[in-house]
Amino acid sequence: MDKETHIEELKEKVKDFCEKRDWDQFHNIKELAIDLSIEVSELLELFRWQNPEEIKETMKNKREAVEDEVADAMFALLRIAQMNNIDLSEALDKKLEKTAKNYPVEKAKGSIKKYNEF
Amino acid sequence: MDKETHIEELKEKVKDFCEKRDWDQFHNIKELAIDLSIEVSELLELFRWQNPEEIKETMKNKREAVEDEVADAMFALLRIAQMNNIDLSEALDKKLEKTAKNYPVEKAKGSIKKYNEF
Amino acid sequence: MDKETHIEELKEKVKDFCEKRDWDQFHNIKELAIDLSIEVSELLELFRWQNPEEIKETMKNKREAVEDEVADAMFALLRIAQMNNIDLSEALDKKLEKTAKNYPVEKAKGSIKKYNEF
Amino acid sequence: MDKETHIEELKEKVKDFCEKRDWDQFHNIKELAIDLSIEVSELLELFRWQNPEEIKETMKNKREAVEDEVADAMFALLRIAQMNNIDLSEALDKKLEKTAKNYPVEKAKGSIKKYNEF
Repeated sequence: MDKETHIEELKEKVKDFCEKRDWDQFHNIKELAIDLSIEVSELLELFRWQNPEEIKETMKNKREAVEDEVADAMFALLRIAQMNNIDLSEALDKKLEKTAKNYPVEKAKGSIKKYNEF
Repeated sequence: MDKETHIEELKEKVKDFCEKRDWDQFHNIKELAIDLSIEVSELLELFRWQNPEEIKETMKNKREAVEDEVADAMFALLRIAQMNNIDLSEALDKKLEKTAKNYPVEKAKGSIKKYNEF
Repeated sequence: MDKETHIEELKEKVKDFCEKRDWDQFHNIKELAIDLSIEVSELLELFRWQNPEEIKETMKNKREAVEDEVADAMFALLRIAQMNNIDLSEALDKKLEKTAKNYPVEKAKGSIKKYNEF
Repeated sequence: MDKETHIEELKEKVKDFCEKRDWDQFHNIKELAIDLSIEVSELLELFRWQNPEEIKETMKNKREAVEDEVADAMFALLRIAQMNNIDLSEALDKKLEKTAKNYPVEKAKGSIKKYNEF
């Protein structure tokens, strides 16, 4: 459960899984980014051509497929972080700090414009 | 730090960040998957045309840029999970179980072939 | 102008451009597919978070940027075809024939469902 | 054959195919860019994890699958151009002119560095 699981534990699971299969040799960051890109594309494919109503339908009727693709993406992202010593919590904190500057609440509220277009 | 941070805490941070800006209205899963796809592409772009030697160079000289893109991807993935009640730990466990069946250690060891091509 | 230009002429232009720069060595199909994927993502980025109304706005106000990204994608696709002796006209004809079978007019008309979901 | 086919003819085929199925309503540029992105990803997937030797193998053994994915991408790109009145020949000419300035032969020859890194 996400409430009880440290990010590090997920990284360790992924590491263990890959090392048992001797996959380090294939997993440089470029190949992993390609893999991540393909998996995300498979997620997006589940919603191709769909309008908001149909997206909700898909979430009801194909939830398992959605979660399966999300897990594939999570696997690749964790593996990128683990292989390259990236602390995801720290990276996210930095990102939130930086994004908060580009998208201050008073300007960004209710708008999805890019920060250089406010 | 990843050792001390539960997944749920990261989800909460992302949730809080987006709700303050009233972004729920824009964040259906299709739009978020598009966003995730774009961010992953920006990560991959850092390694475009590069051979293994040059990839290592990039990891040395542009580490900050790499971590920045990884954080963007992490943000989008956490937001997808948070908005759609996906437990990432559980989804990953299921995925590892399934993948372990398709890629048993004795067959997959040292090979990156797709499971239907063993 | 598209009315006067054979596909082959575009391929020749791209070939000439790349050979002058001695780029054949970098342009295997995997690297070109990565490049194409990145360029398409930059096209999609121009419409991120946008609803149909905003998409029309973008087509009015950023037409040059859109055409620029479309051209990048076209370049990569032509280069893939040229380097690998793929006749795009023939490949497209085959594709249309195949797709016509999966999406017969009487079933597909006005529907965007995937063919295995009719 | 690419030597005998004007770009316009391909656009017309794609237009005719889609209009017969009443698909204009689904084909705004954002949805088409998503579709293009998914198709390119399926092309890239054919080369996932592969080294240069294995890429050549794939081109030998799975040429039909490769051409099929290339055709899917071509379809989407032509449809984007056709629906939005983009002249691909002109767009490509502009792109080549612009790229020639950023990558002059004497600097770019034999190098794949980004133009701002020469």
